[in-house]
Amino acid sequence: MPILRNIAQLATCPSGNPQEDAGLIDNAAVAWTGDTIRWAGPAGDMPPEYNSEPAIDCERRLVIPGLIDCHTHLCFGGWRADEFAQRIAGASYQEIAAAGGGISSTVTATRAASLGELRRKASLTLDAMLRLGVTTVECKSGYGLDTANELKLLEVYRLLNQAHPVDLVATFLGAHVVPAEHRNLRARYVGLLCDELIPAIAREGLAQFCDAFVENGAFTVAEARRILSRAAEYGLQIKIHADQLSDFGGALLAAELGAVSAEHLEYISKEGIEALAGSGTVAVSLPLASFYLGEAYLPARELLTAGVPVAVATDFNPGSAPSFHLPLAMTMACVNQHMTPQEVLNGATTVAARAISASDRIGSLLPGYKADLVIVDMPSLNQWLYQFVPNACIKVLKNGLWV
Amino acid sequence: MPILRNIAQLATCPSGNPQEDAGLIDNAAVAWTGDTIRWAGPAGDMPPEYNSEPAIDCERRLVIPGLIDCHTHLCFGGWRADEFAQRIAGASYQEIAAAGGGISSTVTATRAASLGELRRKASLTLDAMLRLGVTTVECKSGYGLDTANELKLLEVYRLLNQAHPVDLVATFLGAHVVPAEHRNLRARYVGLLCDELIPAIAREGLAQFCDAFVENGAFTVAEARRILSRAAEYGLQIKIHADQLSDFGGALLAAELGAVSAEHLEYISKEGIEALAGSGTVAVSLPLASFYLGEAYLPARELLTAGVPVAVATDFNPGSAPSFHLPLAMTMACVNQHMTPQEVLNGATTVAARAISASDRIGSLLPGYKADLVIVDMPSLNQWLYQFVPNACIKVLKNGLWV
Repeated sequence: MPILRNIAQLATCPSGNPQEDAGLIDNAAVAWTGDTIRWAGPAGDMPPEYNSEPAIDCERRLVIPGLIDCHTHLCFGGWRADEFAQRIAGASYQEIAAAGGGISSTVTATRAASLGELRRKASLTLDAMLRLGVTTVECKSGYGLDTANELKLLEVYRLLNQAHPVDLVATFLGAHVVPAEHRNLRARYVGLLCDELIPAIAREGLAQFCDAFVENGAFTVAEARRILSRAAEYGLQIKIHADQLSDFGGALLAAELGAVSAEHLEYISKEGIEALAGSGTVAVSLPLASFYLGEAYLPARELLTAGVPVAVATDFNPGSAPSFHLPLAMTMACVNQHMTPQEVLNGATTVAARAISASDRIGSLLPGYKADLVIVDMPSLNQWLYQFVPNACIKVLKNGLWV
Repeated sequence: MPILRNIAQLATCPSGNPQEDAGLIDNAAVAWTGDTIRWAGPAGDMPPEYNSEPAIDCERRLVIPGLIDCHTHLCFGGWRADEFAQRIAGASYQEIAAAGGGISSTVTATRAASLGELRRKASLTLDAMLRLGVTTVECKSGYGLDTANELKLLEVYRLLNQAHPVDLVATFLGAHVVPAEHRNLRARYVGLLCDELIPAIAREGLAQFCDAFVENGAFTVAEARRILSRAAEYGLQIKIHADQLSDFGGALLAAELGAVSAEHLEYISKEGIEALAGSGTVAVSLPLASFYLGEAYLPARELLTAGVPVAVATDFNPGSAPSFHLPLAMTMACVNQHMTPQEVLNGATTVAARAISASDRIGSLLPGYKADLVIVDMPSLNQWLYQFVPNACIKVLKNGLWV
């Protein structure tokens, strides 16, 4: 039974804790067998028989659960770096879109890319995420927007989940935007999602979740209700991109449908917060998208005060959040959303696990949980989220193995 | 003569260019001998005799001048991570200071630390900066605030400059705040700076610049004028921490005294901008401080439009900017200050060199300049500053040697 000892601070992030309490233990130790945590606690309480087990000296560092990035658009063709420069130089989204840019350009590039190309590119991103301490990633389709290409993206995720140490949780986001070829007959595209794609994806087990972008310019509340209800009939769990750019009713729909998570919520209304507080839905905060877009940040304090758990994720995608740096998103959540380091760490571990319906297996360092953990080259949680460095993660344990 | 070839994009950052033009060359090559650049240009224009020289294949990557961090408080004792958590939880600066925190706690920790301890800690920071592609660092004293401890900090910089591959440029910032023991007799502390410290530092050649923090709670315009004028008499060049938290007259004083640089400038007035435009003073933007403090950002577009060059630096210090990640500061300058990637790169190379009076030797990749350069694992400048990654720098050449 391997033991981690000489841990300056251990964050156990118990799933039952209030979000402000990350279960910090100073001078701690952790033990696991196979892929499962067996014991975690103060070093002085360690059962004496563990003293003869092989021990790894953490040299007075911080140990945390493997991070969970619970909202990404992991797989896409191309990038949009030149739009970044154009936007800074004053071009509007409308001008960029009119010139063939924006999300359409990513759909074009994604459709043009082969499954192998997309897989290789996403795999390199997963490698880099893992080096940052991320051990589980939720990943959405939504840049294919037709049957063949949505299935292609979900197939990439299925293959990567088998081949890569990082665990992937797939979400079908056919309801990302209406693709150009259906723009004049939106109902036909909604019908395609409901009658063709959702049944096929459920049949093949290609996604655990179905998501919809509820926003002016994307999908109406009525369209999303139809799509997500159909997904629920087929056994998919529900996520919603809600209230990102305006108070558009997405949070209310999330509560109505019992969504597992409502994501973005930069413009959530008071009624939306109250509705989520009663629904058990997790709010997913995406500070990097707010940063890159120069937009508002999710009102974390209001949500937490209302009792809504707040996860923190990257939103990694080629338009509004081209960085997969989850620890940067976490420091931004501290600074820009006034979440405490403990709230933020829970938000990227046990609360993120809840946002993908997995908080009984991952996100906590308690006996019986998956042995996914990170040694962080910092003396404390506060120091880590305060002193932003390129990468403080120095060792990652995934399923009980060093990777 | 070593050659870098197969460069996808080379940024030469000529010191004479307008700031919006970073001298980008696609499909480029660079040659150097000893510590000096000999040739840089389109690969097709490379003199044929270079074809027999040893070449390093950049594999279609970006190459830039070594980055220059022209505003840091590199050397200090302790950290203030717990204050970070306290501030998020709602404690005010005043409350933290009253409890012995804030800058006073760093002064106490710095005074208590030995020269060797301070040197080891700062050296590790320089190692990490170099890995990010930073080859020259301006570093301020200002956490000693008495004769022995200010000289101790400047001695650390002198020793590190000899021992470490990164070049250091030292600035005396005795006028950071008035230390507690002089708080009731400010004039005595100003006298100590003018009559004892400045002459001693000039005599020993321990600093090239003298800086003063002109702000409510720090030093008045009249006090700073006295200190900086004395420094100028002793041959030190002038920098000013100006208009960071309020429009306090610092920029006007910088113009009046012909300061090499005016730093922060988050609250610079219209008159301040006009004054700097006429004085040749460089504005130094510190986006990480604005981020961590939740404060305004320097009005980069207004300054650039007025013809004031804008450098970009980290402000690395244990209070308001505990990160030394210059590329993160650069992406923040793009996003939050609407500086284009070319303006930002010039801001961290040739304009930063100007802010330390060195733009004739470093910050550009032109023949005769120092062979300080970075291979960045990105295909273009736009891609690098858009897609924030932990560290895109994969190889650093310093004084003509790979480090």
